[in-house]
Amino acid sequence: QVYFVRNQAEYYKAAQKLIPGDVIVLANGEWRDFEIVFAGKGTKAKPIILISETPGKVIITGKSNLKIGGSHMLVTGLVFRNGYSPTGEVIAFRRTKEDVAIDSRVSEVVIDHFNQPDRYKTDYWVAMDGQRNRFDHNSLVGKSNDGVTLAVRLDLESGRKNGHRIDHNYFGPRPVLGSNGGETLRIGTSRESMFNSNTIVENNVFDRTDGEVEIISIKSGANIVRNNMFVESRGAVVLRHGDGNIIERNIFMGKGKEHSGGVRVINRNQIVRNNYMEGLNGTGFAGALTVMNGVPNSPVNRYVQVDNALIENNSIVDSARVTLAAGSDAERSAVPVNSKMQRNIIIFGETAKPIVVEDDIAGISLSDNIIFTPKPVSKFPHAMQKSILMERAANGLLYPTDPALANMGAPRDLRMMPMDEVGAKWYAKPKQGDIFGTGKNIEVADGGAALIAALDQAEEGDRLILQGANYSLDRTILIDKSLSFVGMGSGAAKPKITFNRPNLFELGEGGNLRLKDIEISGEDAPDVVGNAMIRTSATPLLANFILDIENVKVSNLIVNKAFDVIALGKGSMADKLNIKGSIFENISGKVVAADSETDDYGRYNAEYLTISNSQFNNVSGNIVALYRGGTDESTFGPHFVFEKNIINNSGHKPISGEAASIILHGVQDALVEKNKIDNSGPLKVVHTTGTPSTMILDNVFTSTPCPILVEEKAEVPPRVMMTGNIFDGKAQ
Amino acid sequence: QVYFVRNQAEYYKAAQKLIPGDVIVLANGEWRDFEIVFAGKGTKAKPIILISETPGKVIITGKSNLKIGGSHMLVTGLVFRNGYSPTGEVIAFRRTKEDVAIDSRVSEVVIDHFNQPDRYKTDYWVAMDGQRNRFDHNSLVGKSNDGVTLAVRLDLESGRKNGHRIDHNYFGPRPVLGSNGGETLRIGTSRESMFNSNTIVENNVFDRTDGEVEIISIKSGANIVRNNMFVESRGAVVLRHGDGNIIERNIFMGKGKEHSGGVRVINRNQIVRNNYMEGLNGTGFAGALTVMNGVPNSPVNRYVQVDNALIENNSIVDSARVTLAAGSDAERSAVPVNSKMQRNIIIFGETAKPIVVEDDIAGISLSDNIIFTPKPVSKFPHAMQKSILMERAANGLLYPTDPALANMGAPRDLRMMPMDEVGAKWYAKPKQGDIFGTGKNIEVADGGAALIAALDQAEEGDRLILQGANYSLDRTILIDKSLSFVGMGSGAAKPKITFNRPNLFELGEGGNLRLKDIEISGEDAPDVVGNAMIRTSATPLLANFILDIENVKVSNLIVNKAFDVIALGKGSMADKLNIKGSIFENISGKVVAADSETDDYGRYNAEYLTISNSQFNNVSGNIVALYRGGTDESTFGPHFVFEKNIINNSGHKPISGEAASIILHGVQDALVEKNKIDNSGPLKVVHTTGTPSTMILDNVFTSTPCPILVEEKAEVPPRVMMTGNIFDGKAQ
Ligand SMILES: [Ca+2]
Ligand SMILES: [Ca+2]
Repeated sequence: QVYFVRNQAEYYKAAQKLIPGDVIVLANGEWRDFEIVFAGKGTKAKPIILISETPGKVIITGKSNLKIGGSHMLVTGLVFRNGYSPTGEVIAFRRTKEDVAIDSRVSEVVIDHFNQPDRYKTDYWVAMDGQRNRFDHNSLVGKSNDGVTLAVRLDLESGRKNGHRIDHNYFGPRPVLGSNGGETLRIGTSRESMFNSNTIVENNVFDRTDGEVEIISIKSGANIVRNNMFVESRGAVVLRHGDGNIIERNIFMGKGKEHSGGVRVINRNQIVRNNYMEGLNGTGFAGALTVMNGVPNSPVNRYVQVDNALIENNSIVDSARVTLAAGSDAERSAVPVNSKMQRNIIIFGETAKPIVVEDDIAGISLSDNIIFTPKPVSKFPHAMQKSILMERAANGLLYPTDPALANMGAPRDLRMMPMDEVGAKWYAKPKQGDIFGTGKNIEVADGGAALIAALDQAEEGDRLILQGANYSLDRTILIDKSLSFVGMGSGAAKPKITFNRPNLFELGEGGNLRLKDIEISGEDAPDVVGNAMIRTSATPLLANFILDIENVKVSNLIVNKAFDVIALGKGSMADKLNIKGSIFENISGKVVAADSETDDYGRYNAEYLTISNSQFNNVSGNIVALYRGGTDESTFGPHFVFEKNIINNSGHKPISGEAASIILHGVQDALVEKNKIDNSGPLKVVHTTGTPSTMILDNVFTSTPCPILVEEKAEVPPRVMMTGNIFDGKAQ
Repeated sequence: QVYFVRNQAEYYKAAQKLIPGDVIVLANGEWRDFEIVFAGKGTKAKPIILISETPGKVIITGKSNLKIGGSHMLVTGLVFRNGYSPTGEVIAFRRTKEDVAIDSRVSEVVIDHFNQPDRYKTDYWVAMDGQRNRFDHNSLVGKSNDGVTLAVRLDLESGRKNGHRIDHNYFGPRPVLGSNGGETLRIGTSRESMFNSNTIVENNVFDRTDGEVEIISIKSGANIVRNNMFVESRGAVVLRHGDGNIIERNIFMGKGKEHSGGVRVINRNQIVRNNYMEGLNGTGFAGALTVMNGVPNSPVNRYVQVDNALIENNSIVDSARVTLAAGSDAERSAVPVNSKMQRNIIIFGETAKPIVVEDDIAGISLSDNIIFTPKPVSKFPHAMQKSILMERAANGLLYPTDPALANMGAPRDLRMMPMDEVGAKWYAKPKQGDIFGTGKNIEVADGGAALIAALDQAEEGDRLILQGANYSLDRTILIDKSLSFVGMGSGAAKPKITFNRPNLFELGEGGNLRLKDIEISGEDAPDVVGNAMIRTSATPLLANFILDIENVKVSNLIVNKAFDVIALGKGSMADKLNIKGSIFENISGKVVAADSETDDYGRYNAEYLTISNSQFNNVSGNIVALYRGGTDESTFGPHFVFEKNIINNSGHKPISGEAASIILHGVQDALVEKNKIDNSGPLKVVHTTGTPSTMILDNVFTSTPCPILVEEKAEVPPRVMMTGNIFDGKAQ
């Protein structure tokens, strides 16, 4: 029977008495706050079907989700958008613990930005339980809150050795989460890693899935990941726990994106073969290929020694890093054993450290590989400095021109997954662009009233061109779209903005802000605790934002003792925060306060923080306070660059925090280069977790204490590269 | 001319061409996002009027405000509700700095809960500028965000010696803010305290205006506060800065409410006379009468020495405290001089320390007073132990029966302001009640689905009676009203609630939660950072809430290393958090985490935290972490009571914070009495600002370190009363 249902009551009625072959058709339109329970006993020949009247025209919004129970159930054509799940999953292949889905399928369903309102409130978009279920041709786009996008669960015995198939899905952009929990796909957890999952993941596209260091996290045994395409995605496919998994015939196209990686091998009997990797710029644990050291007698949640790994016929081209015996330290001392690398082609261009060998690799037998590095690599005699000719084939991939090398590297019949073969074909896939360049110019005459009137009409991507001399504002400007405030050019006199509220700009959901060629003074601001020229909303922000400041003068933030320039609050995350060619003068607080995630959950406020060619005079607080606590190793950031700046008389006496010109806590990647720092608080760097890289190069310090370097966790000397610095006229 | 306007466009058009005698009538209905600018030049005989079609039927909502400029302008009949001001004021007597209001009036206007969405975003509801303006018969109710309710501003020269009159207003309940900035009325700031304001505040009622320690903060000279009525209001009228103010003929009825105070005197030439004070329970700086010590050559923002104060004919009856030379310390060493106290009647009942003299009071000449204390007061021979007979007169106040005492104490002709003579008479004034007792009982059958269905229909004040045995929940319950979850009585078996989300309850805006006679287990919760059985929303909460837990068993919060029972987030404030007769067992995090306001802005998470007759077994984190940073002295709380509890094997190893069973930082008032603490982390008390009272009495400690007592700011020995405690069998 076909039930055409127009509302929830009709649906619930129909759903109570389903028999094999029944079809429920949801009427086109919006279905709000709809918790769909879809369960029954279909048969292979006669499944029970839940379908939209028209694919893509049934929009599930509000607090909604889908629970599937029973067997031979099929769901298709739905779109989840403008809402979030009231439970822990948007789609669960489980009605109750006792009633899990079997032989069921979800196909051509879309989940688009269906995020919990708090970025650190966790959920799964899809949780697969039960046996022999298929999840195919779905589009999962824009998960911004904590939690795996698609999790295969093994917590119930009924979900193990499941034979699920996850295929032809479009895993669309997932922004950097800024903590653990941003995996796009995870199979199992450490608790169940001794069980086999027998899940197949094939023919999917992972497009800009940047959530965290693991794109796919395998935490169980006997899974196959094959024929997938990874495009511009940060992180790697990680064989984190569990044995006997196969990663084969995948194509990784990093396009030079930072932290784009390939495969990381841990545990026993793993096979990595016939993969193609190009332009992967990741290093550390996110290299093109990483074979890790283990922990002797490892507990399930640490690192099991690599044993009997087979790594063959992979091509790694134009990528940044291969690491063997990676992560070797006092705890991770068990080197890889009984393993083979053979018939791989690994060709590096000009790269500083193409291959890193961190411990004894006698347990990896290397034979019949072509490994080219421009210079010899110490501890790795297998690298040759004689390259081979490669040519791009019709499938878009590079292969050796020499026919004698036909059995080397990735196979000829690999195929890049076309975008129109993955995801719901009727649902558009997202594009990229310069967010500040998309709108129109709005010319703004002199005065605060004119600016407020202009803001009323401003739309996404617009640029407000301040043609007047003075803008006195009586309110905080809420930035909830991409907006630029610009003067008349770098040569012209800067229009001056003053404000009589505690904040000039507040970054809200969806906001991005660009300031250029203007002057801002805090002279009219009231004396209120928590003053800041730019702050984020007190409400957590789901979307990451961009803040861009160029040729801006900021002064007179002194009405009280802690007036910050930029204050990033809890639950907010800047993708990029850039300051260039600007001047900051007489500031009582911090210039960049990115230190609000003090819970030590591994969260932080800025992925890339870059400050260059700027001047800081009489800043009482820190120029930068950047904090990332916690001990997990799930994030690449924060990244920090501070170059060619001048600091005078700053960082001496913050009202809160430490006296320091710059304080970096748990920053993964920091470069402080070619700055002049006079009569200021010291630079302080605290290393906590991971493998931080800190370089302090060619700076001139006068009347300023030496940098303070602290290793909080690892019992090693400070891992900081310091060269070329001059202290009070003396070279270091 | 009369302009009857129906929308904003019509209003703006009419408002452009106003001449004396013009009237703009706003049509009844909702006016959303309406920024009213009302300016013109009326005359005394012909003012320009803005009026509602019907008083109380014009509701201004959304982002709205009112700016008044010009002269002889009158606004009346409006209600501001369901919204907030986009600028720093709801009503400003200032269109621009150049155009301030003169001879203008706002009368019978209501501002009701018109709060900024973030409790710590500051604004004024009313800012009075200019000259000779009147603000009368208005109702200001429920300001919950930071910032003075009504501020008289002296920042512009045009606002000094203003002759404003603030009269017949109803200042309705203002909840505890939990930081500085909760004043109901402020005149001037320290910066302008050398100027006279000449403002009259008379015939107003202050009803439960509990925002902070200052109900009225006088920060300028030559103001008169007279004939006002203060009812059940925490805090005092404080002559904070500025000279020559008169506080007279006011009636303070504390009704025994904690922290209800009278008048605090600082600075020169202040007159406090003919006031009546009864049932004022405040002590410290919020006593019925406080005369402070000053700072020699005080900067404007500290304490100017009391000189030439006249305190006469006041009656202080049945109150808790009078303090002279208050706040004496190394900095505040300048005792009062040239001052007089005469013809006052001060009669105490049984009170521990009725009169406190903190320094030399030779500079206060005491003559002809009747001061009765049950016992003699050291350093204060003026107190007699022979009382006089008092009788309640027709005006409701107490006077001596002896005709010979007719010229002593407050005058006979004082009058309690009737409620119907203040505020907008057409707008109802708020009442009080037991929030958990107002609704109906809803009987809930066994199972999570039944509970969720019941929650769907639950309304404000309802009680969910759990009649089943097990409730397994697949979602977090949002508490956005007052709800009780109760079992079948204290004798019956407890219904058990389990949950598979990181949180069982989330307290949202307007939520209050009571749990009674139930059991809650975390056994099904997922392993997620930031787990907590009860948490507050990530969005800041404007309204203070009540959390009440009685005869509840909580166990198995151990799935990860930091699973709290109650986690109060930034921007949330419990008015009361009570735990009684409950058991907490096997908890990996904290039981009460009230330590999220780490910015040291003087904010905190709980006003009254009371735990009694409860047991704590194997709690890894702190039983209580209560934090109040900052150095201002603007709050009475936090208050903490912990009595008759048993702690076993707890507080040893929190994943974050310090190893302690209880950690109190900046708590103003703490009592830890009659507990048994075995094999647990120490009690830690850090005193920061103010005059904290900490008592640790009659506890039994075994295998537990001694309490750690720290004075962070004051250079004094730990100000803690510790008596009757037993440590490992030995008396202290
Ligand atoms: Ca991870
Ligand atoms: Ca205050």
